[in-house]
Amino acid sequence: MLKLYYSPGACALASHIAFEEAGADYESVKIDLKAGEQKAPDYLAINPAGVTPALVTDEGVLTENAVIMSWIADLHPDRNLVPADAFQRARMDAFNGWAAASLHPALSRLMFSRPPLEGDARDAALKAVKDKLALAEQHLLKGPFVMGDQHTVADGYLSVFTRWCRLAGILDGDAYPKLNTHLDAVQARPAVQRALKAQGIEPVGG
Amino acid sequence: MLKLYYSPGACALASHIAFEEAGADYESVKIDLKAGEQKAPDYLAINPAGVTPALVTDEGVLTENAVIMSWIADLHPDRNLVPADAFQRARMDAFNGWAAASLHPALSRLMFSRPPLEGDARDAALKAVKDKLALAEQHLLKGPFVMGDQHTVADGYLSVFTRWCRLAGILDGDAYPKLNTHLDAVQARPAVQRALKAQGIEPVGG
Repeated sequence: MLKLYYSPGACALASHIAFEEAGADYESVKIDLKAGEQKAPDYLAINPAGVTPALVTDEGVLTENAVIMSWIADLHPDRNLVPADAFQRARMDAFNGWAAASLHPALSRLMFSRPPLEGDARDAALKAVKDKLALAEQHLLKGPFVMGDQHTVADGYLSVFTRWCRLAGILDGDAYPKLNTHLDAVQARPAVQRALKAQGIEPVGG
Repeated sequence: MLKLYYSPGACALASHIAFEEAGADYESVKIDLKAGEQKAPDYLAINPAGVTPALVTDEGVLTENAVIMSWIADLHPDRNLVPADAFQRARMDAFNGWAAASLHPALSRLMFSRPPLEGDARDAALKAVKDKLALAEQHLLKGPFVMGDQHTVADGYLSVFTRWCRLAGILDGDAYPKLNTHLDAVQARPAVQRALKAQGIEPVGG
């Protein structure tokens, strides 16, 4: 049985959504970040990086949302969760890579720095996030889905981060109309609602 | 003709190494970060994110080192630059994802923040880097190569970042013996020496 370790609302929600979209047979295990469970010996034995997500499989452990999402999509090819064309799949992988390596760190710095950022440092972090949201709005999100007409695992991934932005009050409808429409469409999907419910969290209205 | 846009010594060196390891037929184009060429209209038309690497192909543009490296490896299967087993390949992808989304941002914050970090902020950034190097040393780098006995594109990628650390004087031989041995072994490879020479940079001794 596949076992997905997640923290509610954190980035592993992307993998959780992918499992629901795939109709996968899996178990999900909550890791309480506030209680420090991600740094406990039991969890470090699974993922020595001490972060979620981690996916335990019969063959070993996989980490990184982009990898876990691709893996589960390939196990359920009937769900068409990745582009069939190799080049378009690489483009999707590049989007997911950007989300992981560029958007996510920028959001983490703005939202989760401890102690919280203030003054010029906060202004700079907010500008970095806005620049990345603008890049997604104007270039990366083809619409209606990230890859255009085909829904892929990249959509659930993007929605995790735009959900954070909406919760933080920075997903401005005038500046980012496509991102807002996209988030609404993703949150309306039954699989996404199941993943949110499984994590005990709610869709976020615009 | 494949066209790889890079900045000397920056992270695109990983893709450059992969092209040389693959024996690929390609052209490389230097982007001068100090002159701001990555933000010039000509380059933004290629990669609107304004970063390197970018790979121009007949089918379109690919970004993100992990994606470009995988792409070129698949075009040259005779070079065995990725694991043949699907699960081990996913593990390699997870390593590359960690390098891109965790190690690289931590190094960028420590080394490339403008204005440069000072005091507590620099101490915290240095600790974050050391924690990630320790994770690689103790868990992620199987040895002698990232994936164990098989050399893969993950090795060139790791070497870019350990090269930066050695240049900055923080790749401590006592703390990180495996990472130092790995960097030396990677830098000794003829393909890596060709990539360094093409970028006009040198191997860095321990």
